[in-house]
Amino acid sequence: MSAPIREPIRLGMVGGGAGAFIGAVHRIAARLDGQFQLVAGALSATPEKARASAAELGLPRAYDDYTAMAKSEARRRDGIEAVAIVTPNHMHAGPAIEFLKRGIHVICDKPLTATIAEAKKLARVAERSNALFILTHNYTGYSLVRQARAMVEAGELGRIRLVQVEYVQDWLTEAAEKHGSKQAEWRTDPARSGAGGATGDIGTHAYNLACFVSGLTPEALAAELSTFVPGRPLDDNAHVLLRFAGGARGMLWASQVAPGNENGLRLRVYGEKGGLEWAQENPNQLWFTPFGQPRRLLTRGGAGVGEAAARVTRTPPGHPEGYLEGFANIYAEAARAIRARQAGEALPEGVIYPTLADGLAGMRFIEACVQSSRRNAAWVTL
Amino acid sequence: MSAPIREPIRLGMVGGGAGAFIGAVHRIAARLDGQFQLVAGALSATPEKARASAAELGLPRAYDDYTAMAKSEARRRDGIEAVAIVTPNHMHAGPAIEFLKRGIHVICDKPLTATIAEAKKLARVAERSNALFILTHNYTGYSLVRQARAMVEAGELGRIRLVQVEYVQDWLTEAAEKHGSKQAEWRTDPARSGAGGATGDIGTHAYNLACFVSGLTPEALAAELSTFVPGRPLDDNAHVLLRFAGGARGMLWASQVAPGNENGLRLRVYGEKGGLEWAQENPNQLWFTPFGQPRRLLTRGGAGVGEAAARVTRTPPGHPEGYLEGFANIYAEAARAIRARQAGEALPEGVIYPTLADGLAGMRFIEACVQSSRRNAAWVTL
Amino acid sequence: MSAPIREPIRLGMVGGGAGAFIGAVHRIAARLDGQFQLVAGALSATPEKARASAAELGLPRAYDDYTAMAKSEARRRDGIEAVAIVTPNHMHAGPAIEFLKRGIHVICDKPLTATIAEAKKLARVAERSNALFILTHNYTGYSLVRQARAMVEAGELGRIRLVQVEYVQDWLTEAAEKHGSKQAEWRTDPARSGAGGATGDIGTHAYNLACFVSGLTPEALAAELSTFVPGRPLDDNAHVLLRFAGGARGMLWASQVAPGNENGLRLRVYGEKGGLEWAQENPNQLWFTPFGQPRRLLTRGGAGVGEAAARVTRTPPGHPEGYLEGFANIYAEAARAIRARQAGEALPEGVIYPTLADGLAGMRFIEACVQSSRRNAAWVTL
Amino acid sequence: MSAPIREPIRLGMVGGGAGAFIGAVHRIAARLDGQFQLVAGALSATPEKARASAAELGLPRAYDDYTAMAKSEARRRDGIEAVAIVTPNHMHAGPAIEFLKRGIHVICDKPLTATIAEAKKLARVAERSNALFILTHNYTGYSLVRQARAMVEAGELGRIRLVQVEYVQDWLTEAAEKHGSKQAEWRTDPARSGAGGATGDIGTHAYNLACFVSGLTPEALAAELSTFVPGRPLDDNAHVLLRFAGGARGMLWASQVAPGNENGLRLRVYGEKGGLEWAQENPNQLWFTPFGQPRRLLTRGGAGVGEAAARVTRTPPGHPEGYLEGFANIYAEAARAIRARQAGEALPEGVIYPTLADGLAGMRFIEACVQSSRRNAAWVTL
Repeated sequence: MSAPIREPIRLGMVGGGAGAFIGAVHRIAARLDGQFQLVAGALSATPEKARASAAELGLPRAYDDYTAMAKSEARRRDGIEAVAIVTPNHMHAGPAIEFLKRGIHVICDKPLTATIAEAKKLARVAERSNALFILTHNYTGYSLVRQARAMVEAGELGRIRLVQVEYVQDWLTEAAEKHGSKQAEWRTDPARSGAGGATGDIGTHAYNLACFVSGLTPEALAAELSTFVPGRPLDDNAHVLLRFAGGARGMLWASQVAPGNENGLRLRVYGEKGGLEWAQENPNQLWFTPFGQPRRLLTRGGAGVGEAAARVTRTPPGHPEGYLEGFANIYAEAARAIRARQAGEALPEGVIYPTLADGLAGMRFIEACVQSSRRNAAWVTL
Repeated sequence: MSAPIREPIRLGMVGGGAGAFIGAVHRIAARLDGQFQLVAGALSATPEKARASAAELGLPRAYDDYTAMAKSEARRRDGIEAVAIVTPNHMHAGPAIEFLKRGIHVICDKPLTATIAEAKKLARVAERSNALFILTHNYTGYSLVRQARAMVEAGELGRIRLVQVEYVQDWLTEAAEKHGSKQAEWRTDPARSGAGGATGDIGTHAYNLACFVSGLTPEALAAELSTFVPGRPLDDNAHVLLRFAGGARGMLWASQVAPGNENGLRLRVYGEKGGLEWAQENPNQLWFTPFGQPRRLLTRGGAGVGEAAARVTRTPPGHPEGYLEGFANIYAEAARAIRARQAGEALPEGVIYPTLADGLAGMRFIEACVQSSRRNAAWVTL
Repeated sequence: MSAPIREPIRLGMVGGGAGAFIGAVHRIAARLDGQFQLVAGALSATPEKARASAAELGLPRAYDDYTAMAKSEARRRDGIEAVAIVTPNHMHAGPAIEFLKRGIHVICDKPLTATIAEAKKLARVAERSNALFILTHNYTGYSLVRQARAMVEAGELGRIRLVQVEYVQDWLTEAAEKHGSKQAEWRTDPARSGAGGATGDIGTHAYNLACFVSGLTPEALAAELSTFVPGRPLDDNAHVLLRFAGGARGMLWASQVAPGNENGLRLRVYGEKGGLEWAQENPNQLWFTPFGQPRRLLTRGGAGVGEAAARVTRTPPGHPEGYLEGFANIYAEAARAIRARQAGEALPEGVIYPTLADGLAGMRFIEACVQSSRRNAAWVTL
Repeated sequence: MSAPIREPIRLGMVGGGAGAFIGAVHRIAARLDGQFQLVAGALSATPEKARASAAELGLPRAYDDYTAMAKSEARRRDGIEAVAIVTPNHMHAGPAIEFLKRGIHVICDKPLTATIAEAKKLARVAERSNALFILTHNYTGYSLVRQARAMVEAGELGRIRLVQVEYVQDWLTEAAEKHGSKQAEWRTDPARSGAGGATGDIGTHAYNLACFVSGLTPEALAAELSTFVPGRPLDDNAHVLLRFAGGARGMLWASQVAPGNENGLRLRVYGEKGGLEWAQENPNQLWFTPFGQPRRLLTRGGAGVGEAAARVTRTPPGHPEGYLEGFANIYAEAARAIRARQAGEALPEGVIYPTLADGLAGMRFIEACVQSSRRNAAWVTL
């Protein structure tokens, strides 16, 4: 991470007012490498809250709504160059479109939108914009996730046969949405989250990670979505079978009602020659299991770990990196991509970030899960 | 394990000649607590091998075939009281029937038989016999598996919502059956194994364990069976969705082609109030995850572990017990059951062993998996 | 971590030019919560390198030497309020004194100095200064280390009997100092590191952590220092016995020649009623082992974790925090302390940071280890 | 473990009556491979208890005292060929001498005796006897402990530098000896245990294991023994520094007062080229850490594990073996040695068992620890 530090990129933020979880994460991630400076925000749909939050954060420019912000910032010479959108899902497309239209790069939380219709509209705008669209599928930012992807790509596992992925939590085991949890409220509300509950919130992360590492193209899925907490309008558990092009098979489990699981995103990929196993809660370790040999424990920054991982890490082995560092890697990659675009250059070699295509794939995943589940877990083509 | 040791039960064995894996396991398991003495055997279908193996083991009475053995032993005053059947699947029903017919208790390897027809025939004979039929679903013998079952039964997890079970190996990653592995040969041969490959060999164990611990009744499954090694006539990977009575849902994964996995039988059960997690490869630990509290690590023989577990263990906590001890627990339970039956008494309280009903459920599981998979993973009622 | 963000504290840096490891860590740690802004530096003893590094980092003000920097910054109205000293040990006291004399707060790397004489001199200056001196014993910044300390303090372990601490690495297994490693060069050079090798570099961290968590006062130690790599003038392994006031006993192991260990700082504390176990490489977990009960796994941000931990963490449970977050916590505490001092207020409740007293204790630890080892591991009073 | 099973060796037992822990372990270990048959016993110093226990176990011949047993069995044509001595330490030498004098092989629990004087006396008798003396330092029986030893011997770690060993328990955290625990009573009683408490009971195991695997010769130690539970006449915690011939250094920690530790015997050995790490509570795994390469996890029976380990294991990888199997390996080795001795043959290649020399080394270890601790942890030559 030895890139020369230039003038930080001027960043704005939509959403992320006081009390929001993911807004604070984006701010730290943006700040961590000194590549972004937050200078403007429409931090809440409630004007007073938007202003109070901006004041608390010491933001030079506070806006009551994102459209005003987009218009105003686009006109300023020192206006924002990029914007982070950290609102609930139904509020992604609107601001993203406003900023993209004006050539302001967008860094947007996942899933892409609440509905497929919104997603398609956003995609059309994005295609015509010269600005970048970066989706924060942050788990792809982990150093050893990059390592895993590079190993698969290099053929160290041979042809991939199996992909087992799960993302398991317990925070919705009880009806938290009825007891004051803002996070639970919008995540269990179809109007704000869209058609998927656990499927959309965390299933999309698992799906994205599985595809990112395995490099496989999903062809079809069969899903059984369940809602275990009475009265909850969205699924809180998803069991999914996956078929990939080339014959690989997979299983995906997403749950928010499995007591004892905090943020259990785990991926296992097996090929003809070996396997890989990684778990987000201890992201500094990656098991490599070549067939017929002892298991090897790769560590972030350690022996046997290559360039794809080394370029997105900051500390020596044994000095653990975590969620914020992984998230910051998305911002670091975004900074590289934005600076290249600003300079009219091609994307620098090695830079990877989740794109609108990933977002559309995630939306299709949610839609297919819901369709399949309604049809008694019949296969749905992806 | 302080039961007074009486005269050992006289035991015979069918199969298990030189080079067999599971035969040796049965012999150690039978011997471990001093409750059985092996005195007769038809150890191989090849007469010379049968005799040589018997000589090597110092067996007093060697037979060339199991029918002769059943007839002869049934007539002797000092004839065997029980027989262990440790042949490939297609050779279970034949000997089991011969011995059951003659009132000799049968301890039989799983799965029950190679075909449903055989299973039904065996069931009819078993119903009419006064002898016991004990199936070695040995993983139910582990002390902490008993603990897990008891905790579910006592309601410590609340109503069960999710059952995630997997049994993952790697020894068939390549075509071992073509390179001299006897174990691989018969396990990939439909004539000897039946309709299920990984499904029958290890999927049945996973299924049995999931039902044993959760206490749930499976209602339907949807399965995708795969054969990844070219030319192999049976599945080497099974992905299965499960529906249980009462609304619980589950996933089962059985694989013999996942490099780096040796004998990875793992079970996770989650209810409204808490969860349990157990892995066969370190069977002396059981995670209990009450919702909203720190995870607790229960250890075999340790604090917080109750009577159901204590009665099937031999050493203090920290002195690990393993596969053979778990297997021996099935024999210890069998001994208690046999002695009670011989004495005309009811089964002593607490004694649990896998029965013919478990065997039939396993056969139905295999059949349903195969049916479902042929019908594109459609749901099949169990 | 919801403190309102005010104008960042203006920070300078001494040392930390291109290629330095710990300088980059300090910069990220200072930046992570937006509480500091780096505006000046004397980043290298080599003027050209100092200027080039400053340019690369975009520092407004670059100095060729720290004295000039101290003088100049102290005179400016917008001069630095605090300085981070990230040089090798023999270059701590000089700059620290210059800045403290001028009322500029000092955040200094450990160990305190290279020699006891320097340490005493520094202490005298610090006593007379109104500026704060903060030592980056960064491992005390981890959220669960704070939790552990709070649990001991609250009596959850009962009277402490045993403290087992170790800090184990492998990077000096071979003579890296002879093959171009700058880090290895100065750390094995008595002129730059002082009298302790592994003892000073990592032993002091282990010692500090053990005292921080246990709350015990060390009374004496017996040490056997070894140098395994031929020609190395300082110890690369330290075996230490510890006696604490009140009768507790301990062991400390510091090594840089144990292959397979990356940054293995591990602490175990046992009292009459229970124990605690923590390992830096997975800092998001803390074992609590109440006697006679199952082990409990506390997680950062998770159930059963209290206020002392909660105030120094940023993300929900399951979203791992690492080395940089722990380090940033020292900076966050420093910011709170500095702002309070600037406002003429008492240190806010709950704020904890390592002080000069910790630094002096570390120097005495190194000196005592060396003395004891020279006297055949005789006990030396602390 | 495919040795042809011949007529079992006739075994007697001294001690091990009802309620004893280790007696039952010896019986299972002796029985597990079918190489021994228990036919006689003096199971208790209390005649009624001796007879009742013998009856309960179904022993053909019960004796009131071991001398009578030795005399009688030595005269019988079908008398015992070997005897297991499983009494408290002060009752080892007496029976061992009686049986050795009469040419009956002795399998004896550790530590060798309660006093050095007894040990020397026993050694003199053993030297003159044609019978074997086998000490059950059972942890050397584990398959992966054999593997570790073989790897060190083969030079895979290079010249050894460091040996870190610990054996940590918690069962004497409180004064169990005052609340009815028979095990605690004799183990904390100098008259029955000798001069060492934790040092003798478990410290000797740790010391033996460290020497067994590292192949190093200990030269001196410095020990600090502590008694944390008031009124206990023997140590319950030992902190020991070790010096080995050739310059290697070590630490040994034995404790019975560390809450949360059940039977935590752990060994780490580091050399110039790599390291090994093993823990008894999960004995089926062995870490091999070659310097500069990823860690490798060796598994019992798995890839990369050699002949020295393979000859003392029974099940395939992933089918965990535990304490009883490890203990049974000592009996299996004893059987091979006894049969060879009976046949007038040399010890078969590969057979290893702990001998009287190991026992004497253990006694010297205890004595040196006590001496050193009394002299303020001064170095004592071994």
